[in-house]
Amino acid sequence: MRDAYHEELDSIGDSLVEMARLVGSAIGRATTAILDADLKLAESVIEADKRVDELQHDLEARAIALLARQQPVATDLRIVVTSLRMSADLERSGDLAQHVAKLARLRFPNRAVPQDLHATILEMGQLAQRLMAKAAEVVVTKDVDLALQLESDDDAMDLLHRTLFQHLLDDRWKHGIETAVDVTLLGRYYERFADHAVAVAKRVVFLVTGEHADELQPEIQPDIQPPTAAGTGTAAEGA
Amino acid sequence: MRDAYHEELDSIGDSLVEMARLVGSAIGRATTAILDADLKLAESVIEADKRVDELQHDLEARAIALLARQQPVATDLRIVVTSLRMSADLERSGDLAQHVAKLARLRFPNRAVPQDLHATILEMGQLAQRLMAKAAEVVVTKDVDLALQLESDDDAMDLLHRTLFQHLLDDRWKHGIETAVDVTLLGRYYERFADHAVAVAKRVVFLVTGEHADELQPEIQPDIQPPTAAGTGTAAEGA
Repeated sequence: MRDAYHEELDSIGDSLVEMARLVGSAIGRATTAILDADLKLAESVIEADKRVDELQHDLEARAIALLARQQPVATDLRIVVTSLRMSADLERSGDLAQHVAKLARLRFPNRAVPQDLHATILEMGQLAQRLMAKAAEVVVTKDVDLALQLESDDDAMDLLHRTLFQHLLDDRWKHGIETAVDVTLLGRYYERFADHAVAVAKRVVFLVTGEHADELQPEIQPDIQPPTAAGTGTAAEGA
Repeated sequence: MRDAYHEELDSIGDSLVEMARLVGSAIGRATTAILDADLKLAESVIEADKRVDELQHDLEARAIALLARQQPVATDLRIVVTSLRMSADLERSGDLAQHVAKLARLRFPNRAVPQDLHATILEMGQLAQRLMAKAAEVVVTKDVDLALQLESDDDAMDLLHRTLFQHLLDDRWKHGIETAVDVTLLGRYYERFADHAVAVAKRVVFLVTGEHADELQPEIQPDIQPPTAAGTGTAAEGA
């Protein structure tokens, strides 16, 4: 009985890893779709999110069944409860990848991202994908050092986000308001995606150490808000 | 024993209601702060979010202790698990109210919202507060009809969000890019706040009926994305 139970617990972990892999792939493909104005690819990302939602529903049902049938305590109980929260993070990450793809579709056949921001958006997309791949690895390996590493990777995302704002607020911005709105939202989507990847990793830290990652490493970046036009140091402070 | 248990379950419900009241008040005060450029009020909203975070941590700990000690099954188990997810929605709503307040602080002594958008932002803030008050009431009363009503209130938020985008994309927009970025983010904060209020209510529906609210009423508004500049009907479709 105890063995079937641990198998069930493992299978919940497997689902989390599968979800992380799907949403990591989704954000990568959504980024390509928006940079290349590739409608087919955008549609496929939008469609594929259903699978992530299904996996979450299924994981949730299995977790609740496990709680009811096996009534785990201590660490096992925390694993199940934390898995539920991780699945919510991953489901939301899938939505955010889908938002990027929907923006690509909305602007098709035009490109939502002007040429001079391609490199930054590409970097944000690649970093988001890499963060999620690491989060998946943390779920598998329970490697606390790797989990804490995600925090500094997330700093790189914040930096990219600031670069985006600097472009937007540069007097030479010539792409108009619609593109400014699109780029603002895109920046927000990537930043939130990264936050969820970090959150997944932090929850693993909590499981392993019993401490919230915040307490282990207090220097956590809050959400970035736009800097002042002057580009002074108030950007981070304001977040 | 069974009585102490139900008291504990009730107290988790009480915490959810308290969280909903705090974040409802926070979004109202944050809206005043940003419209009036009231730095003191903004600071107090930012500060008050700590209390919401504490309540969530505390609720989570009590829920896990309850699961371990009492090992509830069936409906009671679903109540505890769903409460955990509702508390996450409420905690995130608090963050969003805090984001509004932080934007007020960042732009102080200037006003982030131009005069011609005051009315729209005020309405978004009031609607957000009302939605959260209703969500709290749904948690208390378990009133499924009221919960479903939140969906149509949320349609009103989507409409306001579209009005905001129309202003932004109007050729006569004269407030520059920085304000466009601020208004875009504000719109997103209010929309997401409303989504979380609706999510709380929907989770109550799920508890009462055993069905996801989506299945009871399939016409759920997805996240709004910016409309095309032409202002055609593609806005909702693109979301």
